[in-house]
Amino acid sequence: MKYAVRLAYDGAAFSGWQAQGHGLGVQQVVEEALGALHGVLVPISAAGRTDAGVHARGQVVSFEVPRSWEPEMLRRALDARMPQSVRALGVSPVSPDFDARHSARWREYVYFLWAAPATYPHLHTMTWWIHQPWDWEMVRQACVLLPGTHDFSAFCRSADRPERTVRTIFSARLARRGSLWWFRVRGNAFLTNMVRILVGSLAEVGRGRRPVAWFASLLEGHSRAMAGMTAPPQGLFLWNVGYGDEGEKLLWEKGESPIV
Amino acid sequence: MKYAVRLAYDGAAFSGWQAQGHGLGVQQVVEEALGALHGVLVPISAAGRTDAGVHARGQVVSFEVPRSWEPEMLRRALDARMPQSVRALGVSPVSPDFDARHSARWREYVYFLWAAPATYPHLHTMTWWIHQPWDWEMVRQACVLLPGTHDFSAFCRSADRPERTVRTIFSARLARRGSLWWFRVRGNAFLTNMVRILVGSLAEVGRGRRPVAWFASLLEGHSRAMAGMTAPPQGLFLWNVGYGDEGEKLLWEKGESPIV
Repeated sequence: MKYAVRLAYDGAAFSGWQAQGHGLGVQQVVEEALGALHGVLVPISAAGRTDAGVHARGQVVSFEVPRSWEPEMLRRALDARMPQSVRALGVSPVSPDFDARHSARWREYVYFLWAAPATYPHLHTMTWWIHQPWDWEMVRQACVLLPGTHDFSAFCRSADRPERTVRTIFSARLARRGSLWWFRVRGNAFLTNMVRILVGSLAEVGRGRRPVAWFASLLEGHSRAMAGMTAPPQGLFLWNVGYGDEGEKLLWEKGESPIV
Repeated sequence: MKYAVRLAYDGAAFSGWQAQGHGLGVQQVVEEALGALHGVLVPISAAGRTDAGVHARGQVVSFEVPRSWEPEMLRRALDARMPQSVRALGVSPVSPDFDARHSARWREYVYFLWAAPATYPHLHTMTWWIHQPWDWEMVRQACVLLPGTHDFSAFCRSADRPERTVRTIFSARLARRGSLWWFRVRGNAFLTNMVRILVGSLAEVGRGRRPVAWFASLLEGHSRAMAGMTAPPQGLFLWNVGYGDEGEKLLWEKGESPIV
């Protein structure tokens, strides 16, 4: 039987989705829980491979197991076997050809920024704290340029650069509530560090160091060195993954998830 | 020179406002920072003495120091000398007779509840996770009874019961957004554990174990044993403290705080 699981995790507790060096990977924790439940190794496929320190609110994984489960029972069994830093928010049965990574139509990331001279300890681990004032109108103008199909080679960690660096962004928006700002971006797929380098480059515009035209030129395909810094990981959340109307609907996409 | 400071802290990092046993108290951390800045012992007065594990968004302290400071300079100096788990959000000069505890006209607490079968790791340390469904309409009916002057002896930890247990509640409201519910209560002063025992007693009503009339009877003065359990500390935040129109206005009360 094949299942998809929606996961949330606290990025601070892990060295990323995949284990790196001596650190613990989220994938390892989930695979160990599935292994303990089934007595066999259960490899999983994930919609997004988040970096060390990056959070997830709606990561999706899929896997095949030798028995069938009532979805809520499997969700609880996983929750009971994982540390508090990883939570299973929903479970859905899927068809044998469903794959959390390859079947995904879009991924949505949200990057939180805290723009004020002082901060709250409760938000500090989930935001990038901006001390200097930014020109948010300029940042907004740069965001508007993102939707569409572009060569994002400037927005990819050099070591992980694939042959094809063209990706499609469906939407990119900047929103605000008080001192909290967030950048929400949805696209078909993302390169390594792509959202963090986008935010690091928006920061160059926000601080007035570079004009919007410079940001526009980065979307035409450039080397990593041309773009801004890689923004810190703790502001980033893998927010949601979509599998589309034509694909099969997962239980939580049908509004059957009790978590709002 | 006398100053008031608005503080936020992560309750999980401390054994309460005051040090208990081997644990670290928030008061100790603030006094050590002030001591390091001035080379003398600087005793502080606080508006609310929060329990171990209870958070603060708007605690207020006052103290006298042997030099004068530009408020924002003192705020930054404190932030630089305190751990990330305690943040100074604002500093205001005050008159010599101002005292953060005795001058306070009201304290406001917010208690967060997460009502869903599954939870997010990011909210877990700041909410009481309710697994069973509650009858929220009944809880709301109980909340409506709170405003007014009552004998709260049933809502005080027995060991800390003062001679006079009458307190005045100005407002008590239940609000909701998705699976997140919060109980916001404002009063002139609070007894030890009072908000947590109020929430633990509302839980009895919410779970249908006790009628609203039982909650009403508790407000007429009873022993601690008559009320519900003490709700867990991590859902509770000391949200705000007010010093009133007749008292002097602190800088952040005049809207001069840049943190929203």
